[in-house]
Amino acid sequence: MNVAIIGITGYAGMVLFGLLQKHPGIIKINIYQHDIKEAVPLKTLAPQYTYYSKAVKPYDSQTIIDENDAVFFATPAGVTSKLAKPFIDADFPVIDLSGDFRLKDPKEYEKWYHQPTAPQAELEQAYYGLADLTTNPGKNYVANPGCYATSVLLGLAPLMMNDSIDLDNIVIDAKSGLSGAGKKLSDSSHFVQANDNLQIYKPNEHKHIPEIMAMLKQWNPKVDHIQFMTTLVPFNRGIMSSIYVKVKDGVTEAMLKDQFAKVYKDHPFVKVADDSLPTVKEVVGTNECHIGLSYNPVTKYLLVDSVIDNMIKGAAGQAIQNFNLLFAYDADYGLKLTPVLP
Amino acid sequence: MNVAIIGITGYAGMVLFGLLQKHPGIIKINIYQHDIKEAVPLKTLAPQYTYYSKAVKPYDSQTIIDENDAVFFATPAGVTSKLAKPFIDADFPVIDLSGDFRLKDPKEYEKWYHQPTAPQAELEQAYYGLADLTTNPGKNYVANPGCYATSVLLGLAPLMMNDSIDLDNIVIDAKSGLSGAGKKLSDSSHFVQANDNLQIYKPNEHKHIPEIMAMLKQWNPKVDHIQFMTTLVPFNRGIMSSIYVKVKDGVTEAMLKDQFAKVYKDHPFVKVADDSLPTVKEVVGTNECHIGLSYNPVTKYLLVDSVIDNMIKGAAGQAIQNFNLLFAYDADYGLKLTPVLP
Amino acid sequence: MNVAIIGITGYAGMVLFGLLQKHPGIIKINIYQHDIKEAVPLKTLAPQYTYYSKAVKPYDSQTIIDENDAVFFATPAGVTSKLAKPFIDADFPVIDLSGDFRLKDPKEYEKWYHQPTAPQAELEQAYYGLADLTTNPGKNYVANPGCYATSVLLGLAPLMMNDSIDLDNIVIDAKSGLSGAGKKLSDSSHFVQANDNLQIYKPNEHKHIPEIMAMLKQWNPKVDHIQFMTTLVPFNRGIMSSIYVKVKDGVTEAMLKDQFAKVYKDHPFVKVADDSLPTVKEVVGTNECHIGLSYNPVTKYLLVDSVIDNMIKGAAGQAIQNFNLLFAYDADYGLKLTPVLP
Amino acid sequence: MNVAIIGITGYAGMVLFGLLQKHPGIIKINIYQHDIKEAVPLKTLAPQYTYYSKAVKPYDSQTIIDENDAVFFATPAGVTSKLAKPFIDADFPVIDLSGDFRLKDPKEYEKWYHQPTAPQAELEQAYYGLADLTTNPGKNYVANPGCYATSVLLGLAPLMMNDSIDLDNIVIDAKSGLSGAGKKLSDSSHFVQANDNLQIYKPNEHKHIPEIMAMLKQWNPKVDHIQFMTTLVPFNRGIMSSIYVKVKDGVTEAMLKDQFAKVYKDHPFVKVADDSLPTVKEVVGTNECHIGLSYNPVTKYLLVDSVIDNMIKGAAGQAIQNFNLLFAYDADYGLKLTPVLP
Repeated sequence: MNVAIIGITGYAGMVLFGLLQKHPGIIKINIYQHDIKEAVPLKTLAPQYTYYSKAVKPYDSQTIIDENDAVFFATPAGVTSKLAKPFIDADFPVIDLSGDFRLKDPKEYEKWYHQPTAPQAELEQAYYGLADLTTNPGKNYVANPGCYATSVLLGLAPLMMNDSIDLDNIVIDAKSGLSGAGKKLSDSSHFVQANDNLQIYKPNEHKHIPEIMAMLKQWNPKVDHIQFMTTLVPFNRGIMSSIYVKVKDGVTEAMLKDQFAKVYKDHPFVKVADDSLPTVKEVVGTNECHIGLSYNPVTKYLLVDSVIDNMIKGAAGQAIQNFNLLFAYDADYGLKLTPVLP
Repeated sequence: MNVAIIGITGYAGMVLFGLLQKHPGIIKINIYQHDIKEAVPLKTLAPQYTYYSKAVKPYDSQTIIDENDAVFFATPAGVTSKLAKPFIDADFPVIDLSGDFRLKDPKEYEKWYHQPTAPQAELEQAYYGLADLTTNPGKNYVANPGCYATSVLLGLAPLMMNDSIDLDNIVIDAKSGLSGAGKKLSDSSHFVQANDNLQIYKPNEHKHIPEIMAMLKQWNPKVDHIQFMTTLVPFNRGIMSSIYVKVKDGVTEAMLKDQFAKVYKDHPFVKVADDSLPTVKEVVGTNECHIGLSYNPVTKYLLVDSVIDNMIKGAAGQAIQNFNLLFAYDADYGLKLTPVLP
Repeated sequence: MNVAIIGITGYAGMVLFGLLQKHPGIIKINIYQHDIKEAVPLKTLAPQYTYYSKAVKPYDSQTIIDENDAVFFATPAGVTSKLAKPFIDADFPVIDLSGDFRLKDPKEYEKWYHQPTAPQAELEQAYYGLADLTTNPGKNYVANPGCYATSVLLGLAPLMMNDSIDLDNIVIDAKSGLSGAGKKLSDSSHFVQANDNLQIYKPNEHKHIPEIMAMLKQWNPKVDHIQFMTTLVPFNRGIMSSIYVKVKDGVTEAMLKDQFAKVYKDHPFVKVADDSLPTVKEVVGTNECHIGLSYNPVTKYLLVDSVIDNMIKGAAGQAIQNFNLLFAYDADYGLKLTPVLP
Repeated sequence: MNVAIIGITGYAGMVLFGLLQKHPGIIKINIYQHDIKEAVPLKTLAPQYTYYSKAVKPYDSQTIIDENDAVFFATPAGVTSKLAKPFIDADFPVIDLSGDFRLKDPKEYEKWYHQPTAPQAELEQAYYGLADLTTNPGKNYVANPGCYATSVLLGLAPLMMNDSIDLDNIVIDAKSGLSGAGKKLSDSSHFVQANDNLQIYKPNEHKHIPEIMAMLKQWNPKVDHIQFMTTLVPFNRGIMSSIYVKVKDGVTEAMLKDQFAKVYKDHPFVKVADDSLPTVKEVVGTNECHIGLSYNPVTKYLLVDSVIDNMIKGAAGQAIQNFNLLFAYDADYGLKLTPVLP
């Protein structure tokens, strides 16, 4: 198969390109870019590709459709809302790593993203692909989940499905490395500011909140809100979501463990630890989500410790997993990765 | 005044020694150490003192009392419980940075510290010196609070005193740099393991939980428990406690801000931000605690973001503040520090 | 093919295991360990393998020979010098990642390693496999080069082969991440000491000096010594060797570039930059060595900037490359890796 | 005394302000800034001053002269070359932390700084204040040395003064934390790029080369060039200059040690280690330069390991030291600092 990447200069596009090169089902990767008139060498766009001879071609939707079997958009918010139409019209397979098609309600998008939404008719053609848990109803446009959303949803799913927790007191303290903040220069990502520091950002305003809520409601319609905060941590890759939930009376620690075990028993990318709490580093470099549970009998709170590599499970890896599922490959085809240890 | 330090080789002792050298009220610092028979040069005990000519003398309680006006113990748990008696008997001023005299109830100590407690009669001579908020009833033995406890208590005090929050849902996600884990070698503090990583440790078992609870109960006896978790973050110094509390009906954001402003208006070391959330780095190098508030009208949760330098406000700096208060100096005597920026 | 790993608990063994799992020519990986009497689950030896069901078997040379086609030793110095005999006697393929068989002269080994050497007769059966440049004369025992040695030798080879530099003034300032210092706990690898710090170590005593000298002499027998220093840098993986050499009169910058281009034109793992100086990060995660050149017409000094991933090109990756060459696979079989970016 | 700071928003200005606040000889610090028309609160210019009530006043040279006893310029290159005149004309004390007045030769400035120089007549009024070694001939305009220059010059001085080394082979591999690269946003100081990385920059083009050469020539006119390279290291503060020099025949290790001991015996800020090599961290937070020596009898090379805090000894601290000397205070007045350990 031939696949296209749009957005090679961002971090997600970069990691996607690296992973797709090792995918045994991919024959050719074509890279397209806006704002170029003719093909240019990849290295002119991004210095890290100094030794790649590959060319980047000008963006043209029909060319992309003609030359490929699927397209990956690793573009910032606000791009695919404008570009998706020809692909949707042609029912051409799209994996969209941006947030533009994750929310079904145009008003929600405009509220959280502060920019125009894609048309409602197009939004309805998209499927939110939380690859380990949802089932595609047959749509060719896959909205790949956000990084925080992935770690939080995988950590909460068994509890929501089993109605085990107090829905009024879901507190999520999520920590991310700086790659999650993107490649754009800013004061908060300057090394001197970010190093040796912790920075809480976008309190109660993070764009991933509405997609988390939408999915949670599918599992348990009674849920109304989550308390969700994000903190920048001084490393490049990795997310830890520390999820605090109050367990309902009558739900025991054994039942909780059992709920997690059952939901994830056939999902090789999600590992639930027996009696330890995962660290970020054990998943960096992989498409895995590791989950640990710590129940406190005094407070009746359960800590769910959910860790992922934000660039792989939280972006490019899950995108390939969604691609695999769309084309009926095994979910882990091209994704049998080992952690970057030590 | 002459002062003694016991425990110079640990991180807290090291920082204490640095700060006391700049304290204008101190004429001489004497250092004593167990397990030496005669005086040795400081640099033989700790390589970072290569250029200090100072000698360390053998530990002897009577000598310490004779040669000094006060003694600082920067020793690990389990030391002062055995050594305090002669000082208490002599009513000699002691600032104890360890946890041994922080809990009044011997059973609590043994439960959380897993070792024998100091005798009840001695415990009763000690005063828990949360230097910005408590008032010494005239005791000469000051138990200096733990680092996490300091950041959490300063962050919760106005809410407890004003009974503004749901006491059943206090969730604290506290993050600390590696200096908090001490100088002892361990797998979790090996650079390769700790770098680029987040590690939750001692879930629901951290020794600072009981001292936090004891103080909270003084402010609001109805409180029964807190959900408190600690995560190691890849930097050396600093603590951020992200405290999530559910605000009671009828308590507005403005009232919350007002409560913090009132409690801290005459306490120069505690700064409450108007409309930003403090980062760890802005307090590292100082004896300050910076607090930020973020209220979420959807969930009714308030985030209290409380940051300190764990080695200064969380240990040596507060110890000197307690020393100042004991000797009726200004609280900030010798503690007008500036942050280590950039 | 089936292969054995001895030394799975160290960093090199860990990375080797990860890479071999993705090698298409390997059917089965067997892991053996001393000091166990019967097979144990891998995760009991190393917590990072929590989710691996693999067993580790007791070490027995005959079993290893019977069950495998080759064996990788990722053991510390002093182990294979004692264990190699049965494999050498059986002419069984060994890739030895330790330093025990890198030096031909037993006296040199004892001088630099401060422990007994392997017998001279065994040493003579070993081949120093600097995989990109040397040619195996048909020996089945491959001594895999040291990490620093690899980066330095690849950086100096064209200059030595072409006799382009003043042999009396070769100054190498090599920097390594902490994984190079191994998993053993020590003061210098404690996070608090290593973070935010630079530490020069083993001045003029690094074990890699004699293997570098031995190889350099093969290329240019007139060379007598190098000035080689190593500094620990606060990250986990990667080496940068900054090699300063004085260019001979009559040798131009263009000639130097040409010498590098010619030596490496058919060696896909070694990339020579046109006009930039490589950073460490661009090779971390790969088996590549990137080299940059900066000539100073004022001083006549050339800086050769040679960067590798110390765990891959400097250990496990080159070991697999040597394995490939031994079994007549393509050098890059199972080694088409992409860098860990961002 | 009252002093003025121009350039409070940069890192050097920030550290200078912090140190001056603790200087017992300073009564008032006045801050002035270009591009403001009327006084503004300090915190509007720099968020780290949230809790400072201080005002910043518009820049006006006559006001500065009237209101102060001395002025510190912590401005980028190209500023004081335009602003110095009124101060020089008034013979008003200036400590200039920028590079504008460090070089006496206008052509040199234009060659290395790529911008117009200050007038020759003004340049001649300036004195290069390498505070530990040079003596002010009575000039009121002090050009404070560059950070790299300070560490290199203090490391080379005894060798140059004693003519102990081969002047043709001086190789300096200098490493700096990111604060040295300034606050301006750039790709190389983005956290994701700089973290876990080493980046050589400005090869053979660093602006500190000419000021180093000028000073070296004063000590030993025969010196013609140095090989000087700079590498960015992933921490905020600190410089290590690894200086490799070839010792002349007949010069012994003992003689070298003696030369260093003699030159620095009465200079409390420069410490020469007996038999260890200093790490960066031991000087961060202080105005000290620590020097270690490692002689290699095989190569006849001496490594001089010279470490400083680039923001203190390499900028603001040395500026205050120069201020002290100008006003006949003790050199270490207000500079008795302790390292930021742990």
